[in-house]
Amino acid sequence: MFVNEMPRYEILSEEAMNTLDRGWRRIVSELGVEFMLPEAVDYFEKAGQRVEDNKVFLDPEFVLEQVAKAPSEFELQARNPENTIHVGGSSMAFAGVYGPPFVRKGVERGDAKMADFENFVRLGQSFPEIDSAGGTVVEPEDTPLDSRHLDMVYALQTLSDKPYMGSVISAENARDTIEMGKILFGGAEALGRAPVSISLINCNSPLRWDDRMLSAMLEYNRANQAVVCTPFLLMGAMSPVSVPATLVQQMAEALSGIALTQLVQPGCPVVFGSFLSNTDMQSGSPSFGTPESAIGLLCTGQIARSFDLPWRSGGGLTSSQTPDAQAAYEALMTMLPTFLAGANFVMHAAGWLEGGLVSSYEKYIVDIEILRMLKHEFKPLEVNEETLAYGAHQEVGSGGHFLGAAHTLEHFRTCFYRPLLSSTENFDRWSKNGGADTAERAGRIAQETLDGYEQPPIDDAVRDELRDYVARRRIELGDEPIPSPAF
Amino acid sequence: MFVNEMPRYEILSEEAMNTLDRGWRRIVSELGVEFMLPEAVDYFEKAGQRVEDNKVFLDPEFVLEQVAKAPSEFELQARNPENTIHVGGSSMAFAGVYGPPFVRKGVERGDAKMADFENFVRLGQSFPEIDSAGGTVVEPEDTPLDSRHLDMVYALQTLSDKPYMGSVISAENARDTIEMGKILFGGAEALGRAPVSISLINCNSPLRWDDRMLSAMLEYNRANQAVVCTPFLLMGAMSPVSVPATLVQQMAEALSGIALTQLVQPGCPVVFGSFLSNTDMQSGSPSFGTPESAIGLLCTGQIARSFDLPWRSGGGLTSSQTPDAQAAYEALMTMLPTFLAGANFVMHAAGWLEGGLVSSYEKYIVDIEILRMLKHEFKPLEVNEETLAYGAHQEVGSGGHFLGAAHTLEHFRTCFYRPLLSSTENFDRWSKNGGADTAERAGRIAQETLDGYEQPPIDDAVRDELRDYVARRRIELGDEPIPSPAF
Repeated sequence: MFVNEMPRYEILSEEAMNTLDRGWRRIVSELGVEFMLPEAVDYFEKAGQRVEDNKVFLDPEFVLEQVAKAPSEFELQARNPENTIHVGGSSMAFAGVYGPPFVRKGVERGDAKMADFENFVRLGQSFPEIDSAGGTVVEPEDTPLDSRHLDMVYALQTLSDKPYMGSVISAENARDTIEMGKILFGGAEALGRAPVSISLINCNSPLRWDDRMLSAMLEYNRANQAVVCTPFLLMGAMSPVSVPATLVQQMAEALSGIALTQLVQPGCPVVFGSFLSNTDMQSGSPSFGTPESAIGLLCTGQIARSFDLPWRSGGGLTSSQTPDAQAAYEALMTMLPTFLAGANFVMHAAGWLEGGLVSSYEKYIVDIEILRMLKHEFKPLEVNEETLAYGAHQEVGSGGHFLGAAHTLEHFRTCFYRPLLSSTENFDRWSKNGGADTAERAGRIAQETLDGYEQPPIDDAVRDELRDYVARRRIELGDEPIPSPAF
Repeated sequence: MFVNEMPRYEILSEEAMNTLDRGWRRIVSELGVEFMLPEAVDYFEKAGQRVEDNKVFLDPEFVLEQVAKAPSEFELQARNPENTIHVGGSSMAFAGVYGPPFVRKGVERGDAKMADFENFVRLGQSFPEIDSAGGTVVEPEDTPLDSRHLDMVYALQTLSDKPYMGSVISAENARDTIEMGKILFGGAEALGRAPVSISLINCNSPLRWDDRMLSAMLEYNRANQAVVCTPFLLMGAMSPVSVPATLVQQMAEALSGIALTQLVQPGCPVVFGSFLSNTDMQSGSPSFGTPESAIGLLCTGQIARSFDLPWRSGGGLTSSQTPDAQAAYEALMTMLPTFLAGANFVMHAAGWLEGGLVSSYEKYIVDIEILRMLKHEFKPLEVNEETLAYGAHQEVGSGGHFLGAAHTLEHFRTCFYRPLLSSTENFDRWSKNGGADTAERAGRIAQETLDGYEQPPIDDAVRDELRDYVARRRIELGDEPIPSPAF
């Protein structure tokens, strides 16, 4: 996986950091945070925090004491140990898009199906730029609703051997994810060593944690499974129309959620989450890949590091309806700051289109190219006598050409980034080859990748046990039985 | 114009900087630099440098003594004083694409005409994101070759009231540019106060300055007109396949050229130029918007600042054949580092397509949007009690919505970046409105901008004098007379 050894680009002065620090303290202590799950409120009350109904008024020092119990870095296990992820420090892990109910392929846009879900898991498995199989890579509408999470977890576990994300709809779904993790990893002991799943717990911003997601979170905390406590902030809707105001709200929400995890299970793995963009105040629609979102990203990295917490943000976000120029510049407008800020866990890193409503096959490949470029770019430059290549200058001298120089012949295969998708063909050759634009070429690469996909091997007994679990639970949940998938 | 008050992103350690410093010193002293103009060699020889034919072996300390005479910042005058540019320091000035022989509009790609030249000058005049009228915004093939520079300078001077770039084909062309500057600015005295033109002097890399460009440069130096000494470096062709080796070559070339300017006219305005990308080693074609180019850009900023020189680099570079996703991510992959590195003079900031062979109307608008976003992004974040907007949090509390909050209503018009080109329309509305992708929308905006263009006022007598000059010189240069343009 990628380790970002380049400098962090930090834009907040010490004074600004102090002002933000005062801001979140005031919010949690004076305004409080709502936890819509009584069990969660109990945890805080028993720990001596003031409670009014669902609202908890938090002592900032108490919050920081809890937060300090969370690990600053942890391992996230993959069933293939080579794909285990390190979350925190200088490491950056990438997962594909999460949540879209629609799929786009070429000019076709429609409801996402389970076949699409499987395809996006296959894409994530195929590209080394992607470290996690993801979670809800699409929301498949053609599987039974109550047991859909079982089909998704099964596909993530079997079509990929990278770490996956769990279901967060309810405590019951979280327990299913955990049980299936035990089956895949050979028992509860493995989960105790290090998490085998990471799950996205969104805050119902502003300042409210909902009961269903909280109940799922508590299950994961108790089972030592990682969670990402993420304020969901579209400025102008879920937070004020101000980046600093939104940052302190984000701190108040994320830190209060993280404090809860540590009350439930001290030392359990948790990630400071950020999903911060703004509303288009003309249309009322959410905007992505905006300057505000990039600024927020840079600040969030600096803030999360100040609490010594691993953090999640970034991705290839865009509002664009097609994988066109806007989709590309907005995606990079988010992804380059993601690298500058050194986000540890990056969701939506590939395939996000149309404000997150659509998983796009073509955009997936565009994003993979962007990731490949940035991973190349964010490697420290080695400046030494060897890389000065003085011999090449001695050989070529003035007015010559380096194409045939000995140093060039020695290094030409590996000296530069080699694109997957980008074309440098001259116009005549490009035209003669059909004049396909980037989106069209991306569609071809996506299809070729799926055609060449090979399922990672899995023990037959483990697979059968997973299938049995899914079949049994589906009936218990009241859905009609369906045949197990062929994989 | 834009002042970049954000931190610079510097990636070279002190040790790396020292290694690079040793590198350029070795090149200029041991390998030497060729100056193909005898007059230039004379300057160096008279100043005590060792010379063999066209090759000058430079004492690095002597080079630095000359370089120290160059101003670290200077004003570049516009005929409209409000558009005068500051070159250096934290200022960033932007000029459109330079040099393309072809033009692309929609699916039409063809030879560039004078009408296109005029259009791209009009676009540069229309957008406040562009600070300079540019120079060879296209290379128009339908005007007489020997007097073409007169038509171009006339169009730059009259269709725009922003600073322009001069002709560099020969000493005679440079003198024409200077004479026309005197006419426009009311005499030689104005040019002595501060330059009224800036001209691009490319090195014929590796390590050779050609006679024609040098002879043009010397004319500009003597007339106190700004020049940009730019090594032209496609790694693998004009420099070794190594970023550090290319950086030291760039230092050797740029500093030797700048030393010459200061021998000719101590204190004359000069810019440390950089045009650094790499060859696609598979196709042999030049690549743009690459990771290597971004790294080179970041390093060049740090290097130029160490010599206390204003510097030029960056732009919206791409190899893509159309204004598609690749064009956008490659352009931003260069332009975002341009801001991180704080380039002072940015050529090719709008309209560049197909490796610089094409000026694209649609890409121009894509780049304008990118510039607008980055100028918004690279403004320091004001973190204070007012921007914390605690009142908004008090008003909305938990689980509410900020759209109707008093703070939102007070700030919604100006709180966020407002796009020119990007769409946040939901899919249904976007489809109903025709489903135009970004390139199509950009084409419309370009046309609307040209339709709405208003020529900046110019004194009739000055215009007539410029016309007379062009007409007289055209005949002297042996071209057939043609009617003066309508503007």
